[in-house]
Amino acid sequence: MMIDRLCVIGVGLIGGSLARALREAGAVRSIVGCGRGAANLERAAEIGVIDEHSFEPARAAAEADIVVVATTLGATRDILETIAPVVGPDTVISDVGSAKCRVVEAARNALGGAFPRFVPGHPIAGTERSGVDASFSTLFTDRRVVLTPVPETDHDAHAKIVRMWETTGAVVSDMSAEHHDDVLAATSHLPHLLAYALVDCLARMDESEKIFDFAAGGFRDFTRIAASSPDMWSDIAIDNRDALITMLERYSAVYAELRDALEASDRDRLRTIFGRAKAARDRALSPGK
Amino acid sequence: MMIDRLCVIGVGLIGGSLARALREAGAVRSIVGCGRGAANLERAAEIGVIDEHSFEPARAAAEADIVVVATTLGATRDILETIAPVVGPDTVISDVGSAKCRVVEAARNALGGAFPRFVPGHPIAGTERSGVDASFSTLFTDRRVVLTPVPETDHDAHAKIVRMWETTGAVVSDMSAEHHDDVLAATSHLPHLLAYALVDCLARMDESEKIFDFAAGGFRDFTRIAASSPDMWSDIAIDNRDALITMLERYSAVYAELRDALEASDRDRLRTIFGRAKAARDRALSPGK
Repeated sequence: MMIDRLCVIGVGLIGGSLARALREAGAVRSIVGCGRGAANLERAAEIGVIDEHSFEPARAAAEADIVVVATTLGATRDILETIAPVVGPDTVISDVGSAKCRVVEAARNALGGAFPRFVPGHPIAGTERSGVDASFSTLFTDRRVVLTPVPETDHDAHAKIVRMWETTGAVVSDMSAEHHDDVLAATSHLPHLLAYALVDCLARMDESEKIFDFAAGGFRDFTRIAASSPDMWSDIAIDNRDALITMLERYSAVYAELRDALEASDRDRLRTIFGRAKAARDRALSPGK
Repeated sequence: MMIDRLCVIGVGLIGGSLARALREAGAVRSIVGCGRGAANLERAAEIGVIDEHSFEPARAAAEADIVVVATTLGATRDILETIAPVVGPDTVISDVGSAKCRVVEAARNALGGAFPRFVPGHPIAGTERSGVDASFSTLFTDRRVVLTPVPETDHDAHAKIVRMWETTGAVVSDMSAEHHDDVLAATSHLPHLLAYALVDCLARMDESEKIFDFAAGGFRDFTRIAASSPDMWSDIAIDNRDALITMLERYSAVYAELRDALEASDRDRLRTIFGRAKAARDRALSPGK
């Protein structure tokens, strides 16, 4: 595919990696980047991730074939409202938000007649780092991208966003926004919340620095996601509040069961739950998978 | 240092790695391995991790300079009782258990006059894998080993175990068994419990396999410890029950606070807690540390 002019609003880990991947694939002629942080945006231009930059979404999006909104969820709605009057009749708009129902609702309200050319998307890839310096062209290789089109979504617009992500090496599939939000609450949003809670719990303890000193590799892995951006993750939690609360209820039940088993010194019950979890993880996430 | 005869009871990830590290350092003349699983023990001999093997702890320990009990915690007490009558007057005994108070108590009861030559230890290293095939000689390089001697502990015996671990490349320090158990409840035992609970929670959901399919790297890291041995971890949880329950209470309070903030759609409160956690983790576990 060849994108004549790509507009990336929010040139961070995801937006920057998308720009790099498409450029490396020779799939884009020019890339305009947009963002609020001057230092990050100028850095993106300096290292050649983007060709031009602008601090005005309306200006950046004006003549683009594809506009990808890769900001935090909280900023998405305003940006869609700002670009709605300026995008051309063939411009396709997409996003990368980690929760989809509210984005779809916001886009429907913000984009008006351009809404059919909005293809909601979520690349399930990332690291705990942020900013263009954290971006790299292979971030999406063999990773999943979920698109959550609605009945109104234009077929060609959808196909164009599928091809764009396939060009980065990603595996693209469709899902309803509701199902996406349930699945991601389970596999991503809940784990982030638990990891943040654990680290904050330890940080509040006396002599917490000495405690962290005795943390091993397991702790480091377990809490890596707690180094993720608090701005981004507070937005995600709020945007996917209902599905996340449902998951918290499910989790609380299992947690209470483990706690009861521990209080009763019921080793067999603990072993059963641990064993079921290990079997599920080995099945689902063995190194070969 | 030169150990004439080392006895490792339980030639798994930890026991096997200790044997390999000491042998590679040229610090041991002969290693006798002991265990209940014939296949694992014969494998250990076959690949040269041990020189001899025996299924009888009393026979294996009889003429050793150092006996290291590296089984699950549940088996430790019986083994100490079995070897107590046969160990020589200069034999030093140690263990690698992840919880120390109950091991110390068990050793005091089981070892009688040999108790001063028991040096309780815990190498804070490991992976989610088990068995001698998972062992490797550099497992302890730059990792911490905590020893929890008591007032009766013999000075020379303690010094010998310090040297043994330093020979593997580990950083050795002393701590009271009580403090060790509190610290490890926070940094290791609680995270394991939370990870097991999360995976079991997802495994109980409808279409759980499809859900795991959309898990990204963060989930994989977060749940790696849930692939650890259920036998080992149910023993650890029970052995360190009291300290772990205290940590569960602390954790529940932070978890409830996050849940309240989410239910109230209080983005600022979420961002504050997430931000405090991220700052603590960045400070404690930045890549350079």
